[in-house]
Parts: sequence; structure tokens; C-alpha cells
Amino acid sequence: MRKTKASQAHRIWGGRFEHAPDAPTRAINESLSIDKRLWREDLQGSLAYARELAHSKVLSEGQARNIEKGLNQIGEEIEDGVFPFDAALEDIHMNIEARLCALIGEDGERLHIGRSRNDQVATDLRLWQQSAADTLDKDIAALQQALVAQADKTIDWIMPGFTHLQSAQPITFAHHCLAYHAMLARDRARLSDARVRSAESPLGAGALAGSALPIDRHRLARSLGLRHAMENSLDAVSARDFVLEFLAATAILATHLSRLAEDIVLWASTPFAFVRLSFDTSTGSSLMPQKQNPDGAELARAKAARLCGNLVTLLGVVKALPLAYAKDLQEDKAALFDSFDQARLALHALAATVAGLQPDRDRMHEVAAQGFPEATDLADRLVFEHGMPFRSAHAVAGEIVRKAESCGCTTLREIPLEEAQKIFPPLSQKLLDSLTLEHALHRRNAFGASAPERVREQVARLKKNALPSKE
Amino acid sequence: MRKTKASQAHRIWGGRFEHAPDAPTRAINESLSIDKRLWREDLQGSLAYARELAHSKVLSEGQARNIEKGLNQIGEEIEDGVFPFDAALEDIHMNIEARLCALIGEDGERLHIGRSRNDQVATDLRLWQQSAADTLDKDIAALQQALVAQADKTIDWIMPGFTHLQSAQPITFAHHCLAYHAMLARDRARLSDARVRSAESPLGAGALAGSALPIDRHRLARSLGLRHAMENSLDAVSARDFVLEFLAATAILATHLSRLAEDIVLWASTPFAFVRLSFDTSTGSSLMPQKQNPDGAELARAKAARLCGNLVTLLGVVKALPLAYAKDLQEDKAALFDSFDQARLALHALAATVAGLQPDRDRMHEVAAQGFPEATDLADRLVFEHGMPFRSAHAVAGEIVRKAESCGCTTLREIPLEEAQKIFPPLSQKLLDSLTLEHALHRRNAFGASAPERVREQVARLKKNALPSKE
Amino acid sequence: MRKTKASQAHRIWGGRFEHAPDAPTRAINESLSIDKRLWREDLQGSLAYARELAHSKVLSEGQARNIEKGLNQIGEEIEDGVFPFDAALEDIHMNIEARLCALIGEDGERLHIGRSRNDQVATDLRLWQQSAADTLDKDIAALQQALVAQADKTIDWIMPGFTHLQSAQPITFAHHCLAYHAMLARDRARLSDARVRSAESPLGAGALAGSALPIDRHRLARSLGLRHAMENSLDAVSARDFVLEFLAATAILATHLSRLAEDIVLWASTPFAFVRLSFDTSTGSSLMPQKQNPDGAELARAKAARLCGNLVTLLGVVKALPLAYAKDLQEDKAALFDSFDQARLALHALAATVAGLQPDRDRMHEVAAQGFPEATDLADRLVFEHGMPFRSAHAVAGEIVRKAESCGCTTLREIPLEEAQKIFPPLSQKLLDSLTLEHALHRRNAFGASAPERVREQVARLKKNALPSKE
Amino acid sequence: MRKTKASQAHRIWGGRFEHAPDAPTRAINESLSIDKRLWREDLQGSLAYARELAHSKVLSEGQARNIEKGLNQIGEEIEDGVFPFDAALEDIHMNIEARLCALIGEDGERLHIGRSRNDQVATDLRLWQQSAADTLDKDIAALQQALVAQADKTIDWIMPGFTHLQSAQPITFAHHCLAYHAMLARDRARLSDARVRSAESPLGAGALAGSALPIDRHRLARSLGLRHAMENSLDAVSARDFVLEFLAATAILATHLSRLAEDIVLWASTPFAFVRLSFDTSTGSSLMPQKQNPDGAELARAKAARLCGNLVTLLGVVKALPLAYAKDLQEDKAALFDSFDQARLALHALAATVAGLQPDRDRMHEVAAQGFPEATDLADRLVFEHGMPFRSAHAVAGEIVRKAESCGCTTLREIPLEEAQKIFPPLSQKLLDSLTLEHALHRRNAFGASAPERVREQVARLKKNALPSKE
Repeated sequence: MRKTKASQAHRIWGGRFEHAPDAPTRAINESLSIDKRLWREDLQGSLAYARELAHSKVLSEGQARNIEKGLNQIGEEIEDGVFPFDAALEDIHMNIEARLCALIGEDGERLHIGRSRNDQVATDLRLWQQSAADTLDKDIAALQQALVAQADKTIDWIMPGFTHLQSAQPITFAHHCLAYHAMLARDRARLSDARVRSAESPLGAGALAGSALPIDRHRLARSLGLRHAMENSLDAVSARDFVLEFLAATAILATHLSRLAEDIVLWASTPFAFVRLSFDTSTGSSLMPQKQNPDGAELARAKAARLCGNLVTLLGVVKALPLAYAKDLQEDKAALFDSFDQARLALHALAATVAGLQPDRDRMHEVAAQGFPEATDLADRLVFEHGMPFRSAHAVAGEIVRKAESCGCTTLREIPLEEAQKIFPPLSQKLLDSLTLEHALHRRNAFGASAPERVREQVARLKKNALPSKE
Repeated sequence: MRKTKASQAHRIWGGRFEHAPDAPTRAINESLSIDKRLWREDLQGSLAYARELAHSKVLSEGQARNIEKGLNQIGEEIEDGVFPFDAALEDIHMNIEARLCALIGEDGERLHIGRSRNDQVATDLRLWQQSAADTLDKDIAALQQALVAQADKTIDWIMPGFTHLQSAQPITFAHHCLAYHAMLARDRARLSDARVRSAESPLGAGALAGSALPIDRHRLARSLGLRHAMENSLDAVSARDFVLEFLAATAILATHLSRLAEDIVLWASTPFAFVRLSFDTSTGSSLMPQKQNPDGAELARAKAARLCGNLVTLLGVVKALPLAYAKDLQEDKAALFDSFDQARLALHALAATVAGLQPDRDRMHEVAAQGFPEATDLADRLVFEHGMPFRSAHAVAGEIVRKAESCGCTTLREIPLEEAQKIFPPLSQKLLDSLTLEHALHRRNAFGASAPERVREQVARLKKNALPSKE
Repeated sequence: MRKTKASQAHRIWGGRFEHAPDAPTRAINESLSIDKRLWREDLQGSLAYARELAHSKVLSEGQARNIEKGLNQIGEEIEDGVFPFDAALEDIHMNIEARLCALIGEDGERLHIGRSRNDQVATDLRLWQQSAADTLDKDIAALQQALVAQADKTIDWIMPGFTHLQSAQPITFAHHCLAYHAMLARDRARLSDARVRSAESPLGAGALAGSALPIDRHRLARSLGLRHAMENSLDAVSARDFVLEFLAATAILATHLSRLAEDIVLWASTPFAFVRLSFDTSTGSSLMPQKQNPDGAELARAKAARLCGNLVTLLGVVKALPLAYAKDLQEDKAALFDSFDQARLALHALAATVAGLQPDRDRMHEVAAQGFPEATDLADRLVFEHGMPFRSAHAVAGEIVRKAESCGCTTLREIPLEEAQKIFPPLSQKLLDSLTLEHALHRRNAFGASAPERVREQVARLKKNALPSKE
Repeated sequence: MRKTKASQAHRIWGGRFEHAPDAPTRAINESLSIDKRLWREDLQGSLAYARELAHSKVLSEGQARNIEKGLNQIGEEIEDGVFPFDAALEDIHMNIEARLCALIGEDGERLHIGRSRNDQVATDLRLWQQSAADTLDKDIAALQQALVAQADKTIDWIMPGFTHLQSAQPITFAHHCLAYHAMLARDRARLSDARVRSAESPLGAGALAGSALPIDRHRLARSLGLRHAMENSLDAVSARDFVLEFLAATAILATHLSRLAEDIVLWASTPFAFVRLSFDTSTGSSLMPQKQNPDGAELARAKAARLCGNLVTLLGVVKALPLAYAKDLQEDKAALFDSFDQARLALHALAATVAGLQPDRDRMHEVAAQGFPEATDLADRLVFEHGMPFRSAHAVAGEIVRKAESCGCTTLREIPLEEAQKIFPPLSQKLLDSLTLEHALHRRNAFGASAPERVREQVARLKKNALPSKE
């Protein structure tokens, strides 16, 4: 039996080649440092493939068992940190195959029949993404729990509800926290959809044209926990929309995290002073001894840009690639792994930060009273108690605000009645007096509104469902 | 009853203001030229809101009827091109409200109670996106039909299957076309998921804090064809992940279109000459009389970058926006409408282009035979007929290719047997002779492979399901 | 003389074609709605080209004069709004050429010799970009002037200098304004560099292979105000790095504008209350009568994302385009024009907003005193007056801050001396008493620092150079 | 003298803190793994700062010498791989400072006075970017040399000049190569501009407010090889437009590399077969023994997307960041270093690939003759020899092409004269006979055109200037 020379870096694919590629070509081609991370999935895929080859009689049962034994040993070697990784072997697939041959000899050389690195890596990546989606789901759920826990403590803690960062209407800290819970629930749903859609098996598509072996690709797919085999072999090896969808879902998630991070940075800022950060989740300055900085939130905020960048990278890589496989697709993994890692860093940092937030009830109430947030309520009252159409009531309330400002009042309750009556003669002192933050808060009690009774119901429900689950 | 002055550009919100904004502020703020497009959805939302206000007794039945009459008249005016659009009124919402007041007087001023442009525009946009998703679904299905029709004619037309644009293994034109069908099926599924997820109603969330009116937001949602009301009012007005998801789904779709476009540009290129474009779907040169250019495919290819740009725009806009609403979100519509429009242009152009493709069977076969695509089959045969492990067989086949090249052979069948036997002594002439493209093609007949029998089954199935449907 | 049929949409390039393209191909191909904007540059290019053809005797003087007369008339027609634009003629170039032929007959058909729309549009776009850069330079200078004017009024108005939005050290409003002046100066320099680099002439490169006419391309370039002719004809028609550089420069500019916008939104926010916006540059709410929103600043902030999106679009379009020209490049103009327009909207809105800012000196001073910004000065004093190494002094100052906080002090001056001396025994009351904001501000007076004397010098210099100039 | 506790991870900034941050905050905050790479520049900055502190008498000469000795020792330790890096010390700055204190004691604690990590890292990064720009300049020059070397060998090797990948006009391989030389020359100029603009010194700006020490920041700047000190301290610490400009310049460079890569992938493709790749710069397939894949070119092509992604990341990070420093800016380095590294990988791989290209003169000539590229010359000749206006001549030539196609001719020379004369009666056989590729090529000899005499001049000039130099 003919032997390839183990000393050749390109011995696995290089039969036709006079020599190995030069240094610059090897350098740009090297992917082991990135795809090493797929070792578990690569072994899983190879174990399933060997089993299917045995099922379909391409391998004998003994050959398959031999391969399985070798692959299992490789798994142990990697876990134990003793696996002889060799960058000259380009990627994780060839490292494992070369080691398999070294361990079990000729049977190791039998495994790759009908299989290409093209369908192999696509399978590995889909498997990896299944568990990555599960991991992120748990991490997001943990952040949701931290938000619910804060909400539970602050159901009637009035804070200013902003639009355009201008005080608009009073809301509660709890209601604000739960807005993020709702966003994150959709993120989990998006990741779940992406996970299901990617649970298809390219294995058996070969390099591009499909398999000539009598294998059952659906059985093979199911043995990997995937839903079914992909129906077109060219598509199977060249599709990366499953990665793009994951990158898009995490980029959208990251925008939500960045908005939460921005809110935290603002709340903790000196002028807001709505919350204190715990020392656990803040850092200091090398120059200014007094500083307590929300570094974790700021970095979480920045990650939204990085995840967007990763998405842009792969959208650009895939754009205009002719079928079937091209090496450009090797760039998918750096982007994918980075988005996953960075999303986790941000989720963990924010979960800790949210858990450590100490809201300042008095300060939030003080600011909530600024900027005449009771003006909408005045307009509503003019509608209900004086039968005005809303648009006219809005105009009247706007003029009363203008008057209050010019009088130096800080709330509409302070405006002298006679001044207000110059604008709207029927206005009563009783109506003015009732324009409190508390009144404004409690009257907004439709579904989804900020009234504490509504938020309390929601917190109770969310606490029950707080365990990670598909929403 | 007090009247606002109709001549003031800011009369709707400007009670507090001394005067209207200056020209630069109005210029950057103007959105009518973009959001005019939402007029149908804005009327739909207002009709449903008026009806809900009547149901919940905020308006009398007569007031609601009056409003409905006015809104319907506005719809007719816009359709007839006689609606008096006024850019000074900033956006479509205020244009419609102002016109409603002009048409029906005071009752028109009653409509906006408890509603803000913040929940109004979010509702309009979600409604618009529902029908946009349906429209795209039909457009994608039409392109799929064009692909199936080409496949139906070319089930056994051999063409080179490429990896790295190197001839790899023979496939068929039909199989290549169906790869795009599979990608597009996933695009339709992604858009469908996005559509369902976005079918929630923000209406009744007000500016940010929810409604103080006794309305039933779920009933209101259902009357708009949406699934339910959103549970958090801050989230309802400030969320744009539904737009991001749509932009991401269309950007991913556009990468698929760009790959198809690239393939067409290559196939039609002078060196490939795999297809001729119809005159219907190509253009000429102002300088060079002989040119027939695939402009439609090239522009479709470029749109992938543009849709990526639109996605980047909105990811960047939303990043780090504190809650609840900020005017930055107004930038969502230009990106969304452009991605929709450009995706349609590309889908239409490609559907026409694919329909007009005239593949050149002989030329494709000629190229398919180049580059020794039968080498894999040789390796497989060495495995099955000579019991070699695949890796060794691969090495042998590689050396035979090297030998064939140095002998000036263009197929492995041409290599002198004695030369081949120097590499692998047991090799037979019979084996060499059987290494034809046809043999290679037909032997790959596992599920998803390129064998004509497989592709024929698939075409038959797809032709039956060719009507637009959720896959 | 043979005549093409004027009724054919493709009559200019369609000699070889049986008929015009179908509707989808025409729709995606249409560019007149976008490139119409280049009419001035297209006429300028054609006038120069006709003159050069006469110089080099390709045209007679009479033919050239005839063409010039026709082109000038076309210019007047467009200015007067009477030019018969026809979308069926695809683009501005063919519209003008067709009109020229209609106006002056056969001589009009002589103009396009040796010229292609490929070199024509590249020339037009470079000419357009020259004046676009000049326009932006003036707009940026106007914003710089507004910043200097604010600085001039607030040279010693203390405000908190933030890092991480935490009060760090006292600075002045003037110093903060001038930071943006410095950024904008670099933006102007970047645009100026881009302008110079793009001032090369593609004209005479033809479709791709250069000209066979005896023209002097350098003379032609200079007659257009460009530096020289481009040396490689393939590069001349297919290069778009000049557009990319412009898009990059404006995207970077836009990040600066977005930072200024963010600062303004924060300053105007209810919790900060550092500034009031003028009514000129703010808008109201359709629901909440009291609101005064910084819409202009928010939209200016969002434009940074849009300009990034445009840059991504063109980077993606150009990526991997083989030479020479491909129709994908037609996508350059939508991105370029939009970035230019949006940058101008943002510059104008911010210049007006900055001019209208009314800083609140007392409020800024109040916040500047919060958060112990004097701690660095304490550490410095420990170094200079007690000979401590800085790192130890930093640690001592940090502990004193901790003590002050636990005592409920709001400044280090309030801490009881005996408490401070428990941490650092030699500490004197005199040192503590001198830890004022004013002292801290004035002592930072190295070049570039915030001391009013430094800022005053700078304002004086900038006021003198306030006219638009290359910095 | 008080001692900080070396065992505390946060001992450098943590005087005010009760304890170090928790694990998630430390994890997201850790930057040593990235910024370790700045060690040389950090030492260089500290050496210059210590010297300036001595010049200005803040430190004694002995203290400064002591610090210099310690810093030099640290440099040796890092070079020798024995430096005790400690991730708990967050970043390279604190690692070096801590080590300095360990090595030289109290004087080490004196170095950081008046300096913050904010101005320190900005300085380090600007210094790093100076040498990075130089390195890239050399790498680009090497690729230019490879292109010139190919051009030198192929000055009259006809190949098809494409537009839209359709054969347009004959050019030469040399001319095509030199198009890339021209693009790369502009890339070098752009990097050079960016380099000069970034050569400003933030050092002495402190955390944000500038220095209270009597230092001469301009002298300090010059000692670092920078042009001058930055004039606004807030700008100095928070500006990242210098990084953005570098990322933009490299992203634009990468689009050029991707276009070259695309051309190479096409040329090497089976249907084109214009070039053979050397075995040095291609790789094989694990499944298909015959494959020789242009992996290096494909990966170089993909990098354009990755560099675009990095640019998007930092544009998004910087967008809307309020002044002065925020921790988001820490994300600049991962993007910057990656763009630099990936650009180099692509430059090296392409330089090797270009050097190894073996063009196939016959095959290129064969394809150049297809598709009637002589049609423009025919139109030109009708103008010059028959006095037709160009537009009419274009129409006639187009019809002749149509006729030739329908007759099954492959060149215009083959068309029967009587057929041609049905379209244009005066046409002579002599004119038809002269429509050769060679004739078409040589007649295009204006400046910048593809005629060999022009290209020869250019190659001669470029060979002389082949050493790296600013163009």
C-alpha cells in the first residue's frame, strides 16, 4: 500500500503538487488558530459520518469502530491539552485527520471518502451555532432576570420618562427596566428562529456535487441532531446565510444592549445621578483619584458597533461569490466567533451592572417634576372636563406652560390662577392642584402603560417565567 | 372655542413656542418627502383608532363617524392626486390631521387624544412592513419560478461545477439553478418570520408612557390585523428591531441575488460564453458598437452593497439611543424604503434575466471536461475496486493528474496506460476509459446530489408548488 | 447620411440590438433621476472636449463652435426648466447628446468620437466633487465660526469636564467648544487632500483602452481645472477610490458632528440643564404641550450612521470588481450625493443650533463642583508640597474622597481636618481650603489646556482667521 | 512614605475603591491581550515624558535617569520574553508602570504626574501608526514592483480589455497590470497624508483638561518625532479620527487588492485560462486530487470586506460619543491592529501570486479576438475615412456586427463584403481586412492608452523609481 509522506505539509491534498505553498500563501491560508475552536463539532461530525459509512456498508463495522476509537482518543488528547496541533496542517480538519491516521493507520485514511472539507466545515459550523444559540439564550435570560429583580424593587419609584432626553411624562424605574426585558425577549426569539433554520445538514454534499455513496443523508442529519439534509449540494457547501442570520440577530441584540448601556451611563453620570454603580462594576482613573467610571457599560455600548462590523464583514465576503465554494468563506469564522464572544462579554457585564445598580428614588423624583411633564394631563383634563377637542386643549396647555416659564414657576400647580385664566377662563384651582406626578402616573393604566398596577402584574408574571425559556 | 392659527407651520405642536423653527432646522426635520408613502397605513391606523375611541366611549359614535368620513375623503384625495400636501407640516401625520380638521372641523381635533406621533408612526411602519413582506415574497417566488423553468429545460445539461472557479466536478445547469431556489426559499422564510414578529401593535402607547384612556389595545391591534398589543409602552415607541430585522433579511436576500448575478455575469462573459443574454435584458455601449452588456445583473449585484449600507445605517442610528423616543429614529424610513425598492428592482431584473438566458450546452460541456474533473472519480474507484484507503487513493489520483498534465493530455482517459501504471501498477485501461463526465455525473445520486434523476424529482415537486407560498 | 430612429430608446447604442430592453431592465438601469444633477459638469466636460477636438484638428473650428453653441443653449434650457428630459434616454449624458443632435444636427453626432460614457461620467463626477468639497469647506467653516462665537462669550464659564460622563476636572464652556473647532479643522484638511487627489482627468481614456485621436489629454485636463491626465486608461474609467475617499472624509466629519450633537442633546436634557435651545432650533410634541425638543441635533447625530452606510455601500460595490468598467459603479452617485446632502443638512442645523445655545453659567458651575473634581489637584499638591511620588499621592487622595463621601461631604473642603489627617497626617486646612474649582481651572495652563488665559489667546487667533481657509 | 498594596489588582487607581471589580467587569475591561503590542511605543512615550519632566524641573535629573534606566530594562525584559505580564493590571500602561515601581521603587511612582492613560494611549497609538504606515508603504511598493515586473515581460501581449466582462477592445497584459500600479500609488499617497496628519502629540493633555506642569508640550512632541502638540486637551484625548482615517485608507487599499485578486481568480479560472498560478501560491483540495486553487487571491479578496467591517466598527464606536474620553474608545485597537495585519497578509500573498503568474499569450489573444472588439475601430474609420459623424458610424458598425453574428462570422474581417455593403455601400474590403487586433491596439496611443509604445515608456520610468518612495 502506497504511503504519503508525513513530512509534507501538503501531504493530504498535495499529490498533484511539486511542493508546498510559499510562506505568504501559507500565512494567509492558515486557519487553525481560529477554527481549532470547532474541534468538538469536527469530531462529532466525523463520528456520525463514520457510523453512516458503516450503516451503508462503505466501511466495515470494524473499520468504523477503529475510527471511532481514534476519534475519541483525539477528543481526550485535546481536552487534556496534549494534542499535537500543527499549523502547517492548515486547519482543524486536517489536524484531526492526520492525527487519526497516525493513531490508527490505514483506516484513518478511509474516513474522508465522499467528504470534502467544504461540507465538513459547513456541518461543523452549523453544529457549533446550535450550541452557541443555546448559550446566548441563557445569557440573555440572566440579564432579563437582573432587570426583573430591579423592577420588582422599584414598581412605584417615579422617574422621568424621556423623549429626546427631555422630561416628558412620569414613569417608573421598573417600567423602564421592563422595556429592556421586552426587547431581549424578541432577541431570544430571533436567535431561536435562526437556530431552527440553521439546523440543516450539508454533510454528504461533498465538495459541491453531492455524494456517490449509498448513504442516507437524512439519517446522518438526524444523528447530528439536525432536522434534515439540505436538498441541493451546491447550496449546502456554499451557503452562509445561516451565519449571516446569526450575526444579524446578535448585532440587533447588541443594539439593545447598547441602549441599556447608554441609559446606565447617563443614569450614573454626575448631572443625572439617578443611580450609583456598585464598586463591583466600575473602575477608577490612573490620574483622578475620585473617579468611579462605568467602564463595563461603556464597553458593552461599544460592542454594538463591533458586532455591526462583523456582520458587514461577512455580508461583504459573501456578496457576489459565484458558486460553489470559494476560500473567501473561510473568513466567516473569525467574524462569527468574535460576535459570539463579544456579545457574551457585554451580556455578562450588563447583567452584573444591572444587578449592582442602586437607584436614587429622591433624585429621580426631583428630576421627574422638572420640565412640566404634567402638561399632557392638563390637556387631557381640558378634553374630559371641558369638552375641548384635544388639539385645542394641547394649544391651551402649551400656552400655560409658556406662561409658567415666564413666571419662573417650576410646576403648573404654582402658576397664579388668574394668569392661567387669562389663557383659559374656566380653569379651576382644583384642576391645577391635582396635576401631580403621582396622579399622572396612576391614570396611565391601559395595557402596557406605566401605572404601577400594570407593572406589578407584569413583574409577577415574569418572575414565574424567569427560568430560561423560549418566549 | 379657541382656535390655533392655521397659517403657522408649527400650529399643531407649537402652543408653547414663540415662533416656528428656522430654515436649517425645518430642512433637516422635514420628513414628508419620505413618509408620504405611509399615507394608506396612517389612514388605516387612524380609522382603527377612531373606532376604538368610539368603542370605549371616548368619542361619541357621531364623532367617530365624522372622523371616518373625513379620513376616507382624504384617502380619495390622495389617490386622486388632489391632496394639498404641505411640507411646512413636517410629516404625513400632521398633513393628514391638518386636512382632517379643515374638512370636518372640531371633531378632527379630537382624534389625537392619547395618541402621539411616536406610537402612530411605529404603527404605520409595522403595517407597511406587513404588506412589504408579502410583496417581496411574491417577487422572490417569481424569480424562483424562472429558475425552475430553466432547470426544467436543462436537467441533464452538463456544466462544470466550480470550486474556487476551478473546474471541480461535472454538474448540470439545472442543479446550479436550483441551488438558488434553495437559498431563496430560506429568504422567504426569514421574511416570513420577520413579518410575524413585527405584527405587534404599539398603538395606545402614546408618547412613551401608555394610555390613560379606557381603550382595549388588544382589540385595537386585532382590528389592524396585528397579533396583539405590545406590553411595554416605552418599548412600543422606541423599538426599531423590527425594521432592523427586515433590513437584515433583505440584505441577506441581496447577497443571494448578488451571487446569482455574479454567476450570470460570468456565464455571459466572453471567456465563459456559457449563456447568451436576451436583448431584452442587456444593453449596449455608447462607444463600442458590438457590446451587449449584462447591466441588469451587474446592478442587481451592486444592490447587495447598498442594502448592506442601509442596514449599517439603521444599526448605527439605533445604537446607544437612550429610551424612549429620539428623533434619530426618523432615519429609519429612508433606509427601509430604499432597501425594499432596490430589492424589488434586483428581483425583477434577475427574474427577467434568468428567463431570458440561453445556455450553450456544447460550450458548457467543453469546459466541464477541462481541468481533470474526473480525478475524484478515479480516486473513488481506487477505493472501491482496489480497496485503497481514500487518502492514499487521492494521492495516487493527484500524481496521475500531474502526469497527464506533463504529457499534454486534456483528460485522464488520454494518459498512456504504461505511464499511469508507473504510478499505480494495477490500473486498468477499462477503468481509465470509464472516467467520463456522464459517468461522474450519474454516479452522484445521493439526496441533494447532481444526478439528473435526483434533479428531475426535485423539479417536478417544485413545479407543483410554484405558486407563491410560505415554504 | 443614415439616420437612427429618434423614437428608439436605445438609438444611441442600439445599432446591434433588435429592440430596447424590457421594463425591469430599464427600471434598474435608469439613472437620470440621480445623475441629472451632473448636468453642469457634463456640459463643462463636453465643451472642453469639443475644444480639444478642434485644437487637435479632429473637428473643424466651425464644427466645434456649432457644438459649443448647442451645449450652451442646453445649459440655458436646463436652467430655465424647459429642457425635455427623457428617462428613456437612461442618463444625463445621453439626454444631452440627443438634445444636441436635435438642436444642431449632424455636428452633434460628431462629439462622442473617442469618448465613452465611461470616461465621461468619471470626469463629470470628479468635477462635481471639486465644487462639493469647496461647498462643504465653507459650511464647516461656518460651524467653526459659531463655535468660536460661543467660546468668545464663555472663556471663563466653568463647566464640568467629563470623562465617562463623570465629573473629572473643571474646564470651561469655551474650551469644550474649541475642541470641536480642532476636529473640524482636520476634517477640512482631509477634504482638501481628497479634493487635490481627485483633481485628475480621466477624459480621453475612452471606454477603457485610451484614445486613438491626436488629442493632448493634459491640456484637456488643465482646461477643466484638473491637475493632469490620468496615466492608465483602465484605471481612469474604473477607479472610484476618489469617491470612497470623499465618502470616508465626510463619514469621519459626520462622527464629529454626531459627537457635538450628542453633547448638545445632553446639555439641553432636563437633568443636565446646561443650556437652553433657542425656539429657532427646536421643535414640539404633538401630544405633550410642554416639550421643546432638540430635533435638529438628534437628526444631525443620526446622519453619522447614514454617512457610514453610504461609505459601506460603495466599499461593497467596488470590492472585487474586475477591470475595467462594470455597471455596478453606477451606484456611486446615489451614495455620494446623499452623503453630501446629509452632511450639509447636519452642518447647517448644528451651526444654527450652536449659535442659538444659551448656556446656564450657574447650573454648569453647580455640577462642576460635584463628584470631587478637585481630587487630582489634591494629589498634585501632595506631590509638590509634600514630595510624595504621584502614585502614592493618588492613593491618599482617593482615600480622602472615600472618607468625604462617607461623611456626606460634597467637596473636599468640607471634610473635617482631623478625619483627613487620619489618612495623611501632614495635611493642612490651608491646603484643603484652596481646593476650589477656580484654582484648579487656572493652574492648568500648559499649551492646549483649559486655563482661560490659554483659551483667550486661541479665541483671538481663531477670530482673525475666521474666514474659510485651508487650515 | 505610604505604600500601596502590590497585591491589589486595582492598586494603581483604586484608592477610593473598597475592592476590585467583579469577574465580568474585569473580563470586558481587560485590554492587555490587545494593547500589549504597544509596548515599544509606551516605553518611547514614557522615556520622552520623563526627559521633559526633567527639562522642566518637575523631576530631578537623577530621578529621570533612574526612570530611564528602569524603562530600558523593561524593554529588554519584554524583548527577551521574561517580562511578568499580569492581565489583572488591565493594560500595557499599568503593567509597565507597576514593573517600573517594582524595579526602581519610589521614583517609578513619580512618572505619572500630570499624565493620564487617556493622553498616554493616544500618544502610543499615534506613534504606532507612524511606523505602521511606513511598513504598509514598503509592502505596497513590493506589490507594485511585482506588477511592473510582469508588465515588463508582457508589453505587447494582447489580451481582451473588458467592460462588463465582455470583450471590449484589445489591450495588453502589461497595461492591465499597470492599472493596479496606479491605484496603489494613490493608496500610498493616502496613507502618507494620514501619517502626516496623525503626527500630532496629545501628550500633556492629561485626562482631559491639560497640564498644570511647566512642561513644553511642543518640545515633548518633537522629541517623539511628532510635528507639534495638539492645541485642545479635550480633543487630544478623545479624538480618534486619525485611526478612522487610517482604517479608511486601508479599507480603500483593500478594495484595490480585492479587484486585483478577483482578476487573478478569473484569469486562473478554467474557462478563462489566461494564467497559470505557480504551485507556490496555490493549494489543493482534500477531496479532489486535480485541484489547484487560488486560495491566496480569494482570501486577499475577502479581506476587503473585513477591513470595511473594521472601519464600520470604529465609525460606530466613535459616533455620538460625548467629550471627553469614554471607555468605548478602547475598541479602537482591535480594529486598527486587525486591519493592519490583514492588509499585510493580503499584500504579501498578492505580491507572491503576481510574481508567480504565468500568462498564456496564445489563450489571451484567442479570447481577445472574440466578440468583435474591432467594431469601435470600424466606427472610427467610418468617421475618418468617410466623414460620418460618430453616432451614425456607431450605428452602422453595430448593424455590421449584427450581420456578422447572424452569418456565423467570428470577426468582422470574415463578413462577405456584399453583406456589409448592404448596410454601408461605400465599405471596402481593404478597410475590413485592416480590422486586426494589432492595428486596434497600436492606434490607441494617446497619453495613458494601451499602445505598447506608451506602456513601454511607463514601465521604463517605473522601473527606475521602483524603490519605495512617496509618489
